[in-house]
Amino acid sequence: MEGYGTKDTICAPATAAGMAAIAVIRLSGPKAFAIAAGCFEPRKKGLKFDHMPSHRAVFGLIHASGQPVDEVLLTRFVAPHTYTGDDLVEISCHGSPFIQQEILKLLIDAGARMARPGEFTLRAFLNGRMDLSQAEAVADLIASNSSASHKMAFRQMRGHFSERITELRRQLVNFAGLIELELDFSEEDVEFADRSSLSRLLDTIETEIGRLKQSFRMGNVLKNGIPVAIIGKPNVGKSTLLNALLNEERAIVSEIPGTTRDTIEDVIVIEGVAFRFIDTAGLRHSRDVIETAGIERTYEKIRQAAIILYVFDASETTLEEITATLNELREKFYDEHKRLILVANKIDLMQEIPHHFRNLVELETIFVSAKRKENISIIAESLLSSVSVAPEEENQAIVTNSRHYEALAKTAEAIAAVHKGIEENLPGDLMAVDLRTALHHLGTITGEVTNDEILGNIFEKFCIGK
Amino acid sequence: MEGYGTKDTICAPATAAGMAAIAVIRLSGPKAFAIAAGCFEPRKKGLKFDHMPSHRAVFGLIHASGQPVDEVLLTRFVAPHTYTGDDLVEISCHGSPFIQQEILKLLIDAGARMARPGEFTLRAFLNGRMDLSQAEAVADLIASNSSASHKMAFRQMRGHFSERITELRRQLVNFAGLIELELDFSEEDVEFADRSSLSRLLDTIETEIGRLKQSFRMGNVLKNGIPVAIIGKPNVGKSTLLNALLNEERAIVSEIPGTTRDTIEDVIVIEGVAFRFIDTAGLRHSRDVIETAGIERTYEKIRQAAIILYVFDASETTLEEITATLNELREKFYDEHKRLILVANKIDLMQEIPHHFRNLVELETIFVSAKRKENISIIAESLLSSVSVAPEEENQAIVTNSRHYEALAKTAEAIAAVHKGIEENLPGDLMAVDLRTALHHLGTITGEVTNDEILGNIFEKFCIGK
Repeated sequence: MEGYGTKDTICAPATAAGMAAIAVIRLSGPKAFAIAAGCFEPRKKGLKFDHMPSHRAVFGLIHASGQPVDEVLLTRFVAPHTYTGDDLVEISCHGSPFIQQEILKLLIDAGARMARPGEFTLRAFLNGRMDLSQAEAVADLIASNSSASHKMAFRQMRGHFSERITELRRQLVNFAGLIELELDFSEEDVEFADRSSLSRLLDTIETEIGRLKQSFRMGNVLKNGIPVAIIGKPNVGKSTLLNALLNEERAIVSEIPGTTRDTIEDVIVIEGVAFRFIDTAGLRHSRDVIETAGIERTYEKIRQAAIILYVFDASETTLEEITATLNELREKFYDEHKRLILVANKIDLMQEIPHHFRNLVELETIFVSAKRKENISIIAESLLSSVSVAPEEENQAIVTNSRHYEALAKTAEAIAAVHKGIEENLPGDLMAVDLRTALHHLGTITGEVTNDEILGNIFEKFCIGK
Repeated sequence: MEGYGTKDTICAPATAAGMAAIAVIRLSGPKAFAIAAGCFEPRKKGLKFDHMPSHRAVFGLIHASGQPVDEVLLTRFVAPHTYTGDDLVEISCHGSPFIQQEILKLLIDAGARMARPGEFTLRAFLNGRMDLSQAEAVADLIASNSSASHKMAFRQMRGHFSERITELRRQLVNFAGLIELELDFSEEDVEFADRSSLSRLLDTIETEIGRLKQSFRMGNVLKNGIPVAIIGKPNVGKSTLLNALLNEERAIVSEIPGTTRDTIEDVIVIEGVAFRFIDTAGLRHSRDVIETAGIERTYEKIRQAAIILYVFDASETTLEEITATLNELREKFYDEHKRLILVANKIDLMQEIPHHFRNLVELETIFVSAKRKENISIIAESLLSSVSVAPEEENQAIVTNSRHYEALAKTAEAIAAVHKGIEENLPGDLMAVDLRTALHHLGTITGEVTNDEILGNIFEKFCIGK
């Protein structure tokens, strides 16, 4: 890839920044071994760097102009069986930011350069160690924060999704071959491809692409967390409710570092699915209020939500107020994909559920006491029911990436044009153009077709050192 | 060590928390291999866990009840040539906090427990892989943020300091042997040990302990950074001055993560030595002001500083004002070890240095323009001159740890008592008690003598996973 200098030797810290027991620095490229050999002295006297077996952690000293910098474990990974596909060295040093900096300086002085984000994985892609959708899954895997997002990214990294795309591409290439054959003999007016069987083949392809496109809605929310807007007036118990939900599902090993809660949105993982709770300022009930930018932002959040949780104080709220809010919600945010769940809180303050709430039965209404943690699990179950995946779909490929979704949409468009051509009995050369377009877009997913801009966009979002 | 269960198998993340390319999880103890074997499947079919060569990174899958958790590199380190001295496993997984948590859960479910801070290093000590002062140096090394603190910690970790202590202990044991021999034959009134040569031996030991004790002042500031209090009224250019100093010495590789500036104090590393600049609110010039807790804290900071940088605006400040401040400084903060440097800033606003400043020549006064970065290097040199170590001391052992300093002080006390005993010709059995005390305190440094409380205090300050 231009500008990246794939023949350079690159280095970067591969572990998170900060003080820790150990840190790992990666070095990869044609000069990786020469550079490492120049600053590493194995404890075992006489052991030559190039004689160190591949994949073997060797204890020794890193030194800079005669001064020891650290005692490290250095592992030499001989190409091609390495992460990048090039020669690679991992230096496991003491987790001091100062030492990491010193070692990196040393490597850079010896001819390496700092790697850009994702550059190790980019090289793995360029060296054919993985395709582009697998490379993208590596970043998703690292960012995964729930078992649902983890599972999808892991399967994609292992090539599950690529296999589907490759199979689709194979079918299309087959199809194109038949059409092109027809082209070669067009002057003889031979029709090699039986157009009705071609049409059936396209049906199959279109159905599969359609299914994949549809899976994106679910794939995207599972990957990024399902956005839930909580609306309701102050003091109706929204935070108590969130805390109750959180306690219900709190991970057992909360003392493990790095598992802190998101502070901007409350992310709560329920049975492996992440829900992003966005506490909105609540709706304004007067139509006269000038809609400031702040309110507009709140509305935007509600529009983006997959689920609206409308929380009210059951002991105080009148049916009229609820009806007004519901009308406003319907008017402003109606969307066939959005779910609305009513949460009638503070039932601990009531003797019985008042008669007028019976009228709400047609809507999903859950009566709870957040304070006493009553019926909280019903909310959890209700949220989960939004994402139930049918068992037969469990092992289907799911689209989680908007780049893939767009490529599939463009593929579908081009295939629709081909299909139309067949139905209208157009000559093969016209369809061939659309077919090539379809193949092109499908090829961008796995990276069989790519360019600097696509690669740049993908890898700039990676961690340094990956 | 009681309460730590040294026969347990322990696990912990060894790299810093947060998303990154990779993370390393450590597992050590008698069941480490059995636990790892139960959840790891090498990619190479048929490769048995126990047949994996020691120190060899093996690619494979971590799985939990049949479900894959991650693709990892797992390295098996067979005792005793491991960090802890016990069997040890390092799992290098994708740097996702979620994945780390899942793997740790898995290890814990299989019988490991989360390691306490420093517990891997504690085991290294208990297994005789390093002595106590070396173990302490591991934590210092990780925390080191300048080449001076790094060098001291590194030498201590490599046993440089321990060797001196062990040598001192050897001399004392020799001496004690002579005294005890005398004791055994005391009834015969034999004097095996020539008291004047004994006294000379003690002189040597006392001189060395004295030198070590003295080195602590320097060792401590080099390790923790040299505290510099900046005083001066608002708008005299203190922050501009700090920024100018920082730019002068800014590390080349500032894009490396984890090298952010300390935000509470400004730490500036000048030629490998860290200076901690504490910007104080400035002194109050009125004696009548009620000294609030806030002012008292400022004063405390100034008292703890090794250097006071008094910054004033040379274009505006009168000699009277400077004299008043200097008097106040002398009165409140006088200390033979403290240095005072006057910085006359804003010389860019002046045609010439006014005559009255000549009177300040007896004090160290540096005329600068922080704005134009003039003469900033003179301040840097002046600061550095506080820490110049004589070349012959370069390779001497330095005390950097207050625990060691206290042990040396107690050792010195006991030896002084022995010395007095010799001079006063006391019988050997009286001196033997003091000698044992001296040996005891010296032994606590390297851990030949120790107890749970000492160990607990030392290791609780470590990182998790070290």
